[in-house]
Amino acid sequence: MRLAKLLLPACLLPVLAAAAEPTQVPDAALATAEALRERALADDTGWKIVESLTTEVGPRLAGSEADARAVAWAQAKFRELGFDRVWIEPVRFPTWERRSEHAAVLGENAQPVVVTALGGSPGGTVEAQIVRFESMEALQAAPAGSLAGRIAFVDFDMQRTRDGSGYGKAGAVRSRGPSEAIRKGAIGYLMRSIGTSPHRVANTGITRFDEGLTPIPSAALSLPDADQLARLLARGPVRVRLALDCGWTGAEYTSHNVIGEITGREAPEQVVVIGAHLDSWDLGTGAIDDASGVGITMAAGRLIGQLPQRPRRSIRVIAFANEEQGLLGGREYARRHADDVTNHVIAAESDFGAGRIYGFSTSAPAHADAATRRFAQALTPLGIEHMPGKGGPGPDITPLAAVGGAWAWLGQDGSTYFDLHHNADDTLDKIDPQALAQNVAAYAVFAYLAAEAQGDFGSAPKQVATP
Amino acid sequence: MRLAKLLLPACLLPVLAAAAEPTQVPDAALATAEALRERALADDTGWKIVESLTTEVGPRLAGSEADARAVAWAQAKFRELGFDRVWIEPVRFPTWERRSEHAAVLGENAQPVVVTALGGSPGGTVEAQIVRFESMEALQAAPAGSLAGRIAFVDFDMQRTRDGSGYGKAGAVRSRGPSEAIRKGAIGYLMRSIGTSPHRVANTGITRFDEGLTPIPSAALSLPDADQLARLLARGPVRVRLALDCGWTGAEYTSHNVIGEITGREAPEQVVVIGAHLDSWDLGTGAIDDASGVGITMAAGRLIGQLPQRPRRSIRVIAFANEEQGLLGGREYARRHADDVTNHVIAAESDFGAGRIYGFSTSAPAHADAATRRFAQALTPLGIEHMPGKGGPGPDITPLAAVGGAWAWLGQDGSTYFDLHHNADDTLDKIDPQALAQNVAAYAVFAYLAAEAQGDFGSAPKQVATP
Repeated sequence: MRLAKLLLPACLLPVLAAAAEPTQVPDAALATAEALRERALADDTGWKIVESLTTEVGPRLAGSEADARAVAWAQAKFRELGFDRVWIEPVRFPTWERRSEHAAVLGENAQPVVVTALGGSPGGTVEAQIVRFESMEALQAAPAGSLAGRIAFVDFDMQRTRDGSGYGKAGAVRSRGPSEAIRKGAIGYLMRSIGTSPHRVANTGITRFDEGLTPIPSAALSLPDADQLARLLARGPVRVRLALDCGWTGAEYTSHNVIGEITGREAPEQVVVIGAHLDSWDLGTGAIDDASGVGITMAAGRLIGQLPQRPRRSIRVIAFANEEQGLLGGREYARRHADDVTNHVIAAESDFGAGRIYGFSTSAPAHADAATRRFAQALTPLGIEHMPGKGGPGPDITPLAAVGGAWAWLGQDGSTYFDLHHNADDTLDKIDPQALAQNVAAYAVFAYLAAEAQGDFGSAPKQVATP
Repeated sequence: MRLAKLLLPACLLPVLAAAAEPTQVPDAALATAEALRERALADDTGWKIVESLTTEVGPRLAGSEADARAVAWAQAKFRELGFDRVWIEPVRFPTWERRSEHAAVLGENAQPVVVTALGGSPGGTVEAQIVRFESMEALQAAPAGSLAGRIAFVDFDMQRTRDGSGYGKAGAVRSRGPSEAIRKGAIGYLMRSIGTSPHRVANTGITRFDEGLTPIPSAALSLPDADQLARLLARGPVRVRLALDCGWTGAEYTSHNVIGEITGREAPEQVVVIGAHLDSWDLGTGAIDDASGVGITMAAGRLIGQLPQRPRRSIRVIAFANEEQGLLGGREYARRHADDVTNHVIAAESDFGAGRIYGFSTSAPAHADAATRRFAQALTPLGIEHMPGKGGPGPDITPLAAVGGAWAWLGQDGSTYFDLHHNADDTLDKIDPQALAQNVAAYAVFAYLAAEAQGDFGSAPKQVATP
């Protein structure tokens, strides 16, 4: 690791000088990639990894006792899978805990409702009338102070989409809703889960309170419970008790990014990064978020490691720490490796479940177009379409991309992702082993071809405001 | 009510004497039934009743504060729907309460698992290794004392069926499993939920402990959690903490069967009974179990009540108390009306969800065959098949049938019933309004034709060991 970093200044200029030359993928590499692809489709390593992580570690909230077990598990798994180098890099963050959560309608229609605290919410018990808003915009439009002594209830209905675009639109309800509610005077915050499940599972996820505001208990309702509150409100005022026991503990925790590498035979310091995040929320066992990504990328790395010879460049598989509470592992990785970004040839994270991959794109510039098309050609038999201009870097790759790293997008079908995302239903049984194998095949093909390619995909240092 | 009972001795003999005469359904009644059927299909009264009960009362565990609200709701609803007579009959029973429930795997694979206490379970916290059995038979075959200090775990996988026959086979795991486990020395009992839902919802339901045994904490796991324990057991011993706070309170409670009647124009003392149970388990809002039955039968009664003239006999719609903890309402009704059984012309309960009705049969003897076939003829356009010999009385009708009451079966498609039955997912959104209307149509047709028929369907006093 230190070696690669020391070499950087020496190799930086030649790489940049070659940037205008077309990036090439040798024919032999393509043939090997095709064989890898077929082997991956018939291989259940990805599934076994997901089964192992979700069963043996189970839920692995960042900073919890299970976080350390997950880190130990990942190191052991990389070794078991035959990776050449396995190491960890520390990631430090404050810890948040969920202890208990209850909510109930009070009065003549008294009944419990299913809620889950948002990550970052303080504990506390509030009893008040709820005021419903159909969207963030409606909440924002409420007069200042109009929610004094009330619980805000944002009942925004997220749309089911293949590409997850519904999440983008709904995200503000969780991230900014609580702060907005406080500004209007609210003493508690309830939201319809950002999710598409018709079952009695509520979706957690991190929220942040703007500086200067006093945080309020904030929770998400399952969809049937949000509907129930809306029906009750149609009959008259509704009073709710929200009782959360949770919060930031005040302690700092050191977790780790866990890294396994298949060392390149010619340019070991140049790395193709694939990865996923190791942590999960605590409600399910983090099967589709993101044990599947861990399984997909570890299995892809292993398949490449089983070839008769090592790829030209290194394959670096990263199991990122604490994605869920703010990309802490991804940010720390980018900070630590920012001066080595040119050697990060291209990077992709699998963090959108275990649905089949349907689209592929990269951030690579024009001189890599021919190479990118060869990638796409090798992915076509998997039902994957080349979709230039679509997609983006996975969450933990975003900070690396921000400092200049090239990225690839292997777009998964997320139509059912938000049935499970951040709720108790995110368990192993929801994963289709065949779809998972298709993902492994795609990652193996992509990573191998990027490792065998001659030339770059546009990675180069970029000045950023906050590295 | 008392009048009908006093009349019984006088009318008993003539009715019995007429029993050999063929029971007849007038042509005019058939035409009216057909009109009723079409009106029912276009009517949303059933849906509105279900919406009202599940929203305003919500969960209504027998003996809870919500039980009294449900009884008040049902009386008001009968009146609002235009029933001629509305009354209540007391039903007394002990009360059981659920306060909290937790379970977790301990040790190196530490993680919570989703459980729910079985109705009737005592509270208590036990920590022990679990011992898995694939069936009740396997548990029964375990040597006496072999579970000393252990938690029994019966992992029987219930089959999904249209007619609910899978429930019959799985039922013993809940009803007799805990007692069997105690006899083998177990200190706690876990079972795979009797259910078919792949979601993180566990199914409750009543259990009983055999006399002379000391009850042990007994709970059901969601299916994904049962699978998780099985996977962990495949790796080695599994230690679990089961912590239940629940139990019989020691108090007795008086609930009520709530009865609404459309009074017959010629033979008001003769009643066609349709009904459902008013109570529910506490985890969902009791939408398919059994607000749907309440909505179906109340709406059918109302439609008949809206005809230009009252039917020849009375239509009696019964919302039974406390079905869930042992047919307490149904038993009390049969006890109270046993000497009036001949006037209970025929009875049917809707207590298998809100799926479409696909089959019809009755317990009626041969002399009523022609009449029964006319019923079937009027039901055929609803996609309902005449299936003589199939089905049985609904749960709350069983005690009435035991003392000699004739019954009808309007068999609902229960393919998805056990995705929701006795778990938190039993909420309004799971009901298809069109299927519900088909049920209302079938009950209206059946009840009306039975009320217009000349002759009996075989109801006659029967000597029973335990009335």
